[in-house]
This record gives sequence, structure tokens and C-alpha cells, in this order.
Amino acid sequence: MSIQQERRTPDSENHSDSNSKTIDWPKVTKPPTVGIIGGGQLAQMLYQSAISLGIEAHLFASPTDEAAPKYFRDITRASSESWTPPEIYHFAQKCDAVTFDHELVSPNIVRELEKRGCLMLPTASTLELSANKANQRQRLTQLGYSLPPYQICNTLSEITSFGARYGWPIVIKPSTGGYDGRGVYMVDGETDAASIFNSLSSHLPFVVEPKLQLDAEGSVLAVRSTTGECLTYPMVKTLQVEGMCREVTSPGDFPQEIAAEARRVAGKLAEELEVIGILAVEFFVIDGKLMVNELAPRPHNSGHITIEANVTSQFENHLRAVLGLPLGSTDLRVPAAAMVNLISNSNSQNLLPLLPAALSVKGASLHLYSKSSRKNRKIGHVTVTAGSVEEALEAAHQTVDHLSGLEILEG
Amino acid sequence: MSIQQERRTPDSENHSDSNSKTIDWPKVTKPPTVGIIGGGQLAQMLYQSAISLGIEAHLFASPTDEAAPKYFRDITRASSESWTPPEIYHFAQKCDAVTFDHELVSPNIVRELEKRGCLMLPTASTLELSANKANQRQRLTQLGYSLPPYQICNTLSEITSFGARYGWPIVIKPSTGGYDGRGVYMVDGETDAASIFNSLSSHLPFVVEPKLQLDAEGSVLAVRSTTGECLTYPMVKTLQVEGMCREVTSPGDFPQEIAAEARRVAGKLAEELEVIGILAVEFFVIDGKLMVNELAPRPHNSGHITIEANVTSQFENHLRAVLGLPLGSTDLRVPAAAMVNLISNSNSQNLLPLLPAALSVKGASLHLYSKSSRKNRKIGHVTVTAGSVEEALEAAHQTVDHLSGLEILEG
Repeated sequence: MSIQQERRTPDSENHSDSNSKTIDWPKVTKPPTVGIIGGGQLAQMLYQSAISLGIEAHLFASPTDEAAPKYFRDITRASSESWTPPEIYHFAQKCDAVTFDHELVSPNIVRELEKRGCLMLPTASTLELSANKANQRQRLTQLGYSLPPYQICNTLSEITSFGARYGWPIVIKPSTGGYDGRGVYMVDGETDAASIFNSLSSHLPFVVEPKLQLDAEGSVLAVRSTTGECLTYPMVKTLQVEGMCREVTSPGDFPQEIAAEARRVAGKLAEELEVIGILAVEFFVIDGKLMVNELAPRPHNSGHITIEANVTSQFENHLRAVLGLPLGSTDLRVPAAAMVNLISNSNSQNLLPLLPAALSVKGASLHLYSKSSRKNRKIGHVTVTAGSVEEALEAAHQTVDHLSGLEILEG
Repeated sequence: MSIQQERRTPDSENHSDSNSKTIDWPKVTKPPTVGIIGGGQLAQMLYQSAISLGIEAHLFASPTDEAAPKYFRDITRASSESWTPPEIYHFAQKCDAVTFDHELVSPNIVRELEKRGCLMLPTASTLELSANKANQRQRLTQLGYSLPPYQICNTLSEITSFGARYGWPIVIKPSTGGYDGRGVYMVDGETDAASIFNSLSSHLPFVVEPKLQLDAEGSVLAVRSTTGECLTYPMVKTLQVEGMCREVTSPGDFPQEIAAEARRVAGKLAEELEVIGILAVEFFVIDGKLMVNELAPRPHNSGHITIEANVTSQFENHLRAVLGLPLGSTDLRVPAAAMVNLISNSNSQNLLPLLPAALSVKGASLHLYSKSSRKNRKIGHVTVTAGSVEEALEAAHQTVDHLSGLEILEG
């Protein structure tokens, strides 16, 4: 347990360089304020949990953010997509702790805010690791974790040698700029590699991998509080289609020793990397062996299922962690559950007329994100809890198919 | 199924007398707006469900309302505690349907809004029934439901004869003005009766009952949509202390035939009274026999447990019903659950320093209402789901005891 220090006084002139200031609960007389940078669905779901806990939540949103600004009462809108440090500092000053809806925030800006006495969680160091895939892989290798084979490449010839060694196609992941299937390139040969190299050279170095044959993919959420308390959620199975998470099932049907090892690894990572809040650890299982694929230090798509399936949702536990409150139980409270993402299939989809059909699937818990349609954009998700994963998955897909208009197209 | 009619156009001049206009989903192009009158915890929890469904929710709050205004984005504040029909009409016009956080709204105002084309749910007729205990009892008697013995009394001599016949003490409930233990008077004898009669004569007639020996109390929520679909929730057991709900356990440990009969009665009542939204039916069990005690046509304290324990919460189903969407499954998704209310024990209670101790009870789902402390005010609740009701109840009480400072007082 870390020693809790003085509570930061918002708008105080007395800034220090320390970023270890946490909330001193015995002295708290009014609900603390959590600032959330970014106005997507994660902010929206964090807000629902903030309401239950009775804490204040202020949003810092870009001019084009659509989901969370529809519901937050206290919103600061940035002047443009590329906000300036002064405006974000002005926002952070009013909050007792600041967290994130996404990791597209410059770690340098976050570090500057930390220097000025703002409690930023995750910290700049954590964001630096997650914002750069090459740094992340190298750090995980240093720490001794099992990773899929990869090479950090800075030149085209390094890439083509890798292709020659492992066989084409190979997978190229630029260090920065990718999420939700963007930023993962399947490359067929030297010509293709040259074209990717030239167009994405501003995102060098690249993480280069052979095309892997996976047994399965899974994910474990760890959550770690400013007090040092750390818990992990049971391992879920994830299904990715074209690099985007399509469905999640819980509990994942992994061998018991794999699931236990994954939780141990996720908890150890959260502690070794000193993450505060949720750390999502994505795993590959290859030839029966567990490997760390990627980290995300925030509530994660693979954890949306925890809202209905687990005693404490990832969103509530993220807030508890950031606020230095005891973490809630991560246990499943149902036998089984499935979550299916609702992904926009066009730029002009109007879901609303399909809502009655979708909600006629008994047992479906629908979460719409209030985002306009854009092809391949995640605009909602459906969770179903049931006696078995198969039953839950079928009902969740049925609901999503209704909303996608698929049952009309397919007759 | 009722026939859906044209969607009301907000701000339209074309008002009709019909109150059967519902949302015409096949033609909906933007999320409908639900107006909520009253800014307490029910509005707050309805808001959390509105966020998941992606619908808009606007709040009409009194100047002193504390809970929901802290979180709603769109709020209309009344000019005073006794708002005027024009200001509420101005609010209702902007909404596709209007529902309520409490039943303290004059049915006459609601009827006037209905005449002007606003979709008010529950309707003025339903509110009339719930706002007057004498009318409610008489209507239930007409419909042939089993009720505890009672008499509607208009004079002091009727009350004293009732006392003589059944034996003192008796229970007096003025027709109007009571909730949460207020408006229920245990009367010892003639002198006491005269004093109550004189001070509360503006709330005549009185419902007068003998002091009953209850086996148990329970509650069933029915939910009925504008489409006519009607579902009931499994019966829960309630424990009242000094007329206020203290704890709820689910499933209630009633004999199977009592629980089934209670669900049948609640569903039949919702249909016969043409309630839209949640109808909470409170039951007494006396000498093994089920009797209807009271009705409330809104999300109900005995249904807060459904947030964690049931597939669809009462709040989401209330919104689905009001919007004419298919209702969600009311089934329990856990083996057992318990809810305990957090009731203020003083006028100056600061819960926040006690939060870490309370949340250290693993498994507790806390809901704080952001209301200031006032002795005997409900300021939050805790739900725990578990393998057994006993286990859930113990953890819920532990959490509430921490927040009440009891574990400090009792050592």
C-alpha cells in the first residue's frame, strides 16, 4: 500500500512535481471529481458508473466527439481536434483525478500536467508504453514475458529480410496511430512492403510479425488502485474479424492452467508497469502456449461484458482504482455471458426503426453509443447472460443481426 | 396490441384529445426524448438506463431537487416548488413521452397536458388512483381483489366505532399526502383519534385498518408497454421498519403458490387499470393468505434490486414500456440477491470518509443518491448478489452499517 498524501486542492497555486497525490478519504467533505479526456463510449459507460458511486465526472471532449457529450452534464469542449496544453490544463485543474477514454493523448502533455500537480491516471509513463507498439514489445521482452515472434524494423531491408526468413505474408504494425484494426497491415511481398514503408514512414519503427496460426485469442483485465490493491478478472475469449473485436465470451473456454496463467501474467504486468486503473492484456494462444499480444491501459472492449456478467464492472473498478477506493469483486455473477459488437455496415445506417425487432430478443442488454454511422465503426454492443456461452452467444448475435438489418436481407 | 398512431410532433399546433399516440418506430429517424418529472433517485437511475438505450432524457426538476440534476444534461428547473401548468407544458412539448420520478403531480395538470396532445405515462387516470388511498382501496375492492380489512371513514364517530369493533390500536391512513412511512398513523384510542382527525381533516377521507399481524410483506413489479405487452417480475420479500422499506430479498421465500398468485394479481392489475410502465404492487401475507396492500405506478424501491439481480432492470423496462419497445426479460440472472436501503441517521451526515470501509465489503454494489443528509431520508442503497439470500443480506447490511458509521459506534 502506498502512503496517501495530501489531497490536491483544485485551483491551488501550490503545485508540486509529485504525481503521487491521491484522494485522502478521511478528510473528504464533498464528492471528488474525476475528469475524463475523450468523449466516446468508454466515457459514456464510465459516467453511468460515476452516477452510482455518487461522484462527479467532468468531460473533456473534442469538437467532433459524439457519444458521451450527449449525456454528461459538465463538459469542456476543446477549441479544435488538436487541443492545446493550456485548455487541457484548465480542465484538469478542476478535477481531483483525470483519466482517459482513449490513449490518443500525447504523453508529453500528460507529463507536463503531472508536473503541474494534476493527478493523471494512467500516468504519462504508462501512456508512453501503450502509445508506442515498438516500445511496448521491447519492454515486455525485457521483463521476460512470452511474446509472439517479432522484430522491430527501421528500414525496408530489415522488413524484406524478415519476410524472407519467416515467409510471406507478414504482418506490419507501425509503432503509433493504430487501433480497432487500423494500423495492422497484412503484407504479401516486397512490393507491398515497400509501399507500406513509404506511406507510413512517419510511424516508424514498425513491429513486424509472421502471420500467426492462433489456437485462440483471449483477454484478461487487471485493475490496480492508487492504494496498490490489484485484482484481475476471469479470462474471456475474444474473436477478432479483420483486426476488430467482434465477440467476447465469458468464461473463455481455455484450459484451466492457461486461464490461471493469463490472470497471473496480467496482474504481474499491472504491478510491474505500475498501471493505475484498468489494464487490458490481450493474449494469443499458439500451440497451446500463452503469449502476450498487446496492452491497453484503460477500460477495454473485451471488458464491456463485465457490466452484466461480473459483480463489479470494469468501469466502476476503473473509477474505484483512480479514486483510491477498495476494488469491487471481479467474479462472474452468472454462469455464462456473451458480448457482440454492433459495427456499422454503412455510412447512413438508421438503427432506430430496427430497435423493436432487436429488443424482442428476450435477454438482450443493448448498449447504443449515440454515434453516427460510419462504415466499420463500433456503434454499440449487446450482452446476453445465460446458462451457457452458446445460448448467450446465439441471442446476442440475433439481436445484432436485427440491428444490422441482416434478418431483412437474408429473409 | 393497440394500434400505433401517428408520432406526436413536438411543438405541433395540431393537438388532439387522444392520449393514445405512441412512438411510431418504423418512422423514427432520431432518438426519441423521454421527459421525466421530478429529480430524485428514480430519475437518476432512469437516466443510467436511458444512456444504454441511446435515448434522450430531459429532466423537469424542482428548485430544491438534488439527486438527478447533478447528472442530467438537459434540465428544466421549475420557478418554484409549486410549478405552474404553463412551465410544465413548455417542458412536455419538447418530449415524445413524459414519465414521473414520483406521484406527487396533480392528476388535473396531467390531464390538461394529455388534452393538449402530450403523451403522459402513467396517464392522469392512473395517477388519480395512486394519489388517493381511499379511491385506490375502493377500486381494488370493486375489482374483486383480496384486501386487508378496512373502512373508509369521513367522520370521527366512524373511526371510533371502527376502533371499538376491531379493538385499539388501529391504523389511520389519510387519503392523500403520505409516502415512506409518512401518512400512516398508529392510533391508541379515542383521544388520539380525535387529535389525528382534527389535524389532518384536509386529507379526508381516511382509510382505517385494524393493526394487522403479518406473516410477511412482499412486492411484485408488473410492467406494461403502450403496445399492450405485460410482464411481471419474480416476487421479492420486503422488510419495513417504521413504515419505510429497509431491505428487499430476491427471490422472496414465499410458498410457490403465493408467489405465483402474486405475479398473476400484479399482471392482472396492470392490465385492468391500464397502467403503462412499472406498476409496483405491495402485498401482505396474513394467515397464509395474499392481500393487496398498495399500488405505485412507477419504478419502486422494492425494484432497485433488479439492476443487479434481473436480466432487465425495472428502470430499463419502464423506459421500454413508455417508448412502446418490446419488454426485456424479467428473470433473475443470479441465484439470490439482497438490497438494503441507506437511511440517513442525522441531518449532518458526511458519508464520504466512510466510503473506503464500505466498499471494502467485496460484492457490494453501491448506489448513492447525491442527496444531502436529513434524518430518515433515503440517501442510497446497496445490492449484493450471491449464492444465497442470507449471504447477500449479510454483506449488504455490513456495507450499509459501515456507511452509517455503525461499526464505529458498536466497536
